[in-house]
Amino acid sequence: MGVCMEPNVNHAACPSRQVLEHVTSRWGVLVLATLLERSYRFSELRREIGGVSEKMLAQTLQTLERDGFVDRDAKPVIPPRVDYTLTDLGREAADQVWELARWAEARMELVLRARETYDEARP
Amino acid sequence: MGVCMEPNVNHAACPSRQVLEHVTSRWGVLVLATLLERSYRFSELRREIGGVSEKMLAQTLQTLERDGFVDRDAKPVIPPRVDYTLTDLGREAADQVWELARWAEARMELVLRARETYDEARP
Repeated sequence: MGVCMEPNVNHAACPSRQVLEHVTSRWGVLVLATLLERSYRFSELRREIGGVSEKMLAQTLQTLERDGFVDRDAKPVIPPRVDYTLTDLGREAADQVWELARWAEARMELVLRARETYDEARP
Repeated sequence: MGVCMEPNVNHAACPSRQVLEHVTSRWGVLVLATLLERSYRFSELRREIGGVSEKMLAQTLQTLERDGFVDRDAKPVIPPRVDYTLTDLGREAADQVWELARWAEARMELVLRARETYDEARP
């Protein structure tokens, strides 16, 4: 992936677009916002985030770890225990998506009403 | 789609999750952040946002319009002219995703370095 001189998410080939896509991905948003609260084990995270499959959660965590947003700490115990924690960089993203998640919850009713109005005008 | 008593994006069936998904969707993020600057015509928006197809842009705009984030203003002129503008509600979301886009651009280099470190440790 080429490096753009002037980072710009509106340029398809600019790596910054992929950075944005990873923190706003369907499960990335929820993982980051959830980890803002505290460290989580894989199984806890899976229970906390409704509807995520084991495969998608593992893939999302690996992407976030590779980007430097999440630390993966595998404890040498039996049974194996793996903790996921935000890095400082990850916390920056998580602060923002956490706000966005709270905004979506606060505005949910308004959006549902907007949809009704839209649908009624187009029978 | 059922309404949850206590909106929570971590609940798979809560409509707030879909609200969050619409504003953080691949093209939704870029459309909202771009419209924060000013109103755009469809063709301008398509030029501005690299890599978006006509179909995906139309679909994204329709979703954002139905959610009450974007106003679609079709001028009765020849050739047809359609302007897209953020609503007040859309501006709330756009402010936040605009920040996130600027953050992704500012942190791009750090993420690229984190990926190199990650990949080097796993040859």
